[in-house]
Amino acid sequence: MRYAMNYRLIGRIIAPLLLIEAVFMIPAWGISMVHHEMNAAFAILKSQLIILVVGGILWVLTRRSEHGFYAKEGLVATGFAWLVLSLLGALPFYISREIPSYVDCVFEMVSGFTTTGSSILADVEAMDKGLLYWRSFSHWVGGMGVLVFLLAVVPLAGKNEGFTLHILRAESPGPSVGKLVPRMRQTAMILYILYMVLTVLDLLFLLLGGMPVFDAVCTAFGTAGTGGFGVRADSMASYSPYLQNVTTVFMLLFGVNFSCYYLLLLKRFREVFFDEELRLYIMIVVSSILLIAWNISGLYATTEEVFRHSAFQVATVISTTGFATTDFDLWPSFSKAILLFLMLSGACAGSTGGGMKVARLLLLMKSLRRNFHANLHPSEVRKVRMNGSAVDEKVMNNVNGYLIAYAAIIVLSFLILSLDGFSMETNFSAVMATFNNIGPGFAAVGPVCNFAAYSPLSKIVMIFDMLAGRLEIFPILVLFSRSTWKKN
Amino acid sequence: MRYAMNYRLIGRIIAPLLLIEAVFMIPAWGISMVHHEMNAAFAILKSQLIILVVGGILWVLTRRSEHGFYAKEGLVATGFAWLVLSLLGALPFYISREIPSYVDCVFEMVSGFTTTGSSILADVEAMDKGLLYWRSFSHWVGGMGVLVFLLAVVPLAGKNEGFTLHILRAESPGPSVGKLVPRMRQTAMILYILYMVLTVLDLLFLLLGGMPVFDAVCTAFGTAGTGGFGVRADSMASYSPYLQNVTTVFMLLFGVNFSCYYLLLLKRFREVFFDEELRLYIMIVVSSILLIAWNISGLYATTEEVFRHSAFQVATVISTTGFATTDFDLWPSFSKAILLFLMLSGACAGSTGGGMKVARLLLLMKSLRRNFHANLHPSEVRKVRMNGSAVDEKVMNNVNGYLIAYAAIIVLSFLILSLDGFSMETNFSAVMATFNNIGPGFAAVGPVCNFAAYSPLSKIVMIFDMLAGRLEIFPILVLFSRSTWKKN
Repeated sequence: MRYAMNYRLIGRIIAPLLLIEAVFMIPAWGISMVHHEMNAAFAILKSQLIILVVGGILWVLTRRSEHGFYAKEGLVATGFAWLVLSLLGALPFYISREIPSYVDCVFEMVSGFTTTGSSILADVEAMDKGLLYWRSFSHWVGGMGVLVFLLAVVPLAGKNEGFTLHILRAESPGPSVGKLVPRMRQTAMILYILYMVLTVLDLLFLLLGGMPVFDAVCTAFGTAGTGGFGVRADSMASYSPYLQNVTTVFMLLFGVNFSCYYLLLLKRFREVFFDEELRLYIMIVVSSILLIAWNISGLYATTEEVFRHSAFQVATVISTTGFATTDFDLWPSFSKAILLFLMLSGACAGSTGGGMKVARLLLLMKSLRRNFHANLHPSEVRKVRMNGSAVDEKVMNNVNGYLIAYAAIIVLSFLILSLDGFSMETNFSAVMATFNNIGPGFAAVGPVCNFAAYSPLSKIVMIFDMLAGRLEIFPILVLFSRSTWKKN
Repeated sequence: MRYAMNYRLIGRIIAPLLLIEAVFMIPAWGISMVHHEMNAAFAILKSQLIILVVGGILWVLTRRSEHGFYAKEGLVATGFAWLVLSLLGALPFYISREIPSYVDCVFEMVSGFTTTGSSILADVEAMDKGLLYWRSFSHWVGGMGVLVFLLAVVPLAGKNEGFTLHILRAESPGPSVGKLVPRMRQTAMILYILYMVLTVLDLLFLLLGGMPVFDAVCTAFGTAGTGGFGVRADSMASYSPYLQNVTTVFMLLFGVNFSCYYLLLLKRFREVFFDEELRLYIMIVVSSILLIAWNISGLYATTEEVFRHSAFQVATVISTTGFATTDFDLWPSFSKAILLFLMLSGACAGSTGGGMKVARLLLLMKSLRRNFHANLHPSEVRKVRMNGSAVDEKVMNNVNGYLIAYAAIIVLSFLILSLDGFSMETNFSAVMATFNNIGPGFAAVGPVCNFAAYSPLSKIVMIFDMLAGRLEIFPILVLFSRSTWKKN
């Protein structure tokens, strides 16, 4: 059964999101005022006005919204919401002229919301504090999802469970969304409360280590959202080993499926202990740290340094955060190859991290195994099982579809970026770093470099990649599909 | 239903193959005698004796073979056959001491049989003619498949249709094997006859262009099998434009599904004209040639040169042959990115080319589209269609499984090769070039370089990759699976 797209309802979701965005900018404005950055404060104020006007018009235009909200609307609403929030969220950078090109502004903003952390800024320390705050805060709200936030805090009239589920599905990372509690709205609330508690904990540990308050707040946002925008030119290199280690631990924690924390609160330790994804995640982390430590042991003076840098870089890449304590582009090929693999794998489903997700990797391995078995023993039929229960074939189909789309987007993006003439390593790692929402890549886009040198076309491709990576492809692809807009 | 492996029957297949291998070495021996290469002739003779003895022992040991031959045996027999033929086929290089390391000998031989064309030889012109012939001939026999040859020429007693089908399935490239005629043995025969006719045609065109007979024979073998071993240090660069263009055309022709030629003979032009795979193949070839020509137009003096080099390199990479007329490693990034994509795509199913195959690419695109549609319209159920008829879900599952295994092998191989410390571009393209049976890669394994510098471990990994690429993964993976060897 086909049906016409419910545009009005989509408008009704985006309008309140714009109100939230304008409200979220208030602290940034305050910080600029406190630091006497009048230009930035004025730019933020102007942006808030524009956002409110756009939101208001949208609200009035979509007043008489019809009912009927299906999977298609869930995908389109999510994709559109992220696009609009990014286009308008970039305004403070543009109006303040701190970033002259609007494409660059959008790149920076999308990099923030999608928790990528790739930057076009050559000198981050030259930027106004209020704008730096806004940049880092976008990581925090993008990490758990801005629509999930909307669902958690605003009781939208006339929106049923199915609607909430479609949105949560479209915005939450991972092959399938588990409900923690029967009602989706409460699930969203629980997720955000856990998220806030963990963020505050991280902040406290950073403050205890003597980090300046502004740095600590921005670092906590960047860690919680697994984003990676720093406020210093050398990212985390000049902070104390204690602060680096705290960040290592919290990056890894934010890479874990949040439902595990909920289960811990309910004292269901057994389920957490035997969670297959968590086990594989820990296994990958530990073995990567050991292999890299072995590979780079000659590069640093002490064993402490070797393990600190190895653990930090593994944590920053697998959680797709993107901070750095050392220029890992100078590491030997084997260590870089491991980091490249971690970029691809990414963190756990239902975390704030990006990448393919460990759960998908696990399902792909199981799918391969089943296919292998089917070729050897054509008469036997097997179901794929995860954590003891059978996985729905629909989920398996989506995981396979995801892999195809994932590979296709990497290949096409790589082709277009190659037009700019940079090296294969630069282009490939730029695609991997943006699409998997990591941040820095290798060579000319390594941790001590930035993405400014690419052409506007390449930047638009990477903007697409960041959004597609964060929303796991479909909500973004759907905006470009003919069949979405076909009247029927 | 599980059953014990039928080892004896597998032995009964490999023993006659060894006889064939020894017979195939006779011309190489003759050529060495004619050129007074006594060392090489003696080495070939010794190798033949060893092969015959091993084959004889195997024949005697497996005298009382039981009946019962299933998919499992088809896969295992194919994987084993290729491994044994390569290990023994490498003997002439080793015994003659022309290649001192046995791992290198096996690398060269596997590269030959799998029609890869990657070489560890620094100076190919220094090698004895007889051994050069053997090296090039291995491309020819590996191209269409050595087991297919066995099935076509030797009437094996007690072997039924199912048996033949399992072998053909395991050895033939592409997502599914179509029977040209009801009986599989005749299908194999028709394929080989078409293959021989096309090879002879290529040879004639080369001789007409004035190529020396020895060069022409070896080049025709390398072209027909889409292998790529040359007999000159600069591959095809010093031959005349006419000879280069003839090779371009024939490389492209050998990349086409052979069933298309059979249909042409039957005057079923309509089916060939509307063949979806052929259309996509032609589209990829033409657009790649145009894009590269545009990208490299400044590098050569005349338009003729630009198009000749562009077309040759596109043909050599998409057909996975691996000859070269120019050092394409010096081309701009965009052209190299296109070549990298062609490495991945490969030629048509049912051709002698390697890679993923255009048909699989097409099925993956269709699978993605279906998955996309299912997410937008969950209530509709769609079948994937190709050339007008529905594709079996089993084939779709295998295509998905293939993509997963393909990606996993690339990632793991890349990780191991990185241990040797070469650049990312070198390692990645080395994996792509061997796994997709191309030949040369980029940077330190580019067309004017060779694979000798890698460690034995990396060479073994690439030997595995070449075999897995040629046999499309499963027949090789099955040899390493616990479930294959489990008694039940």
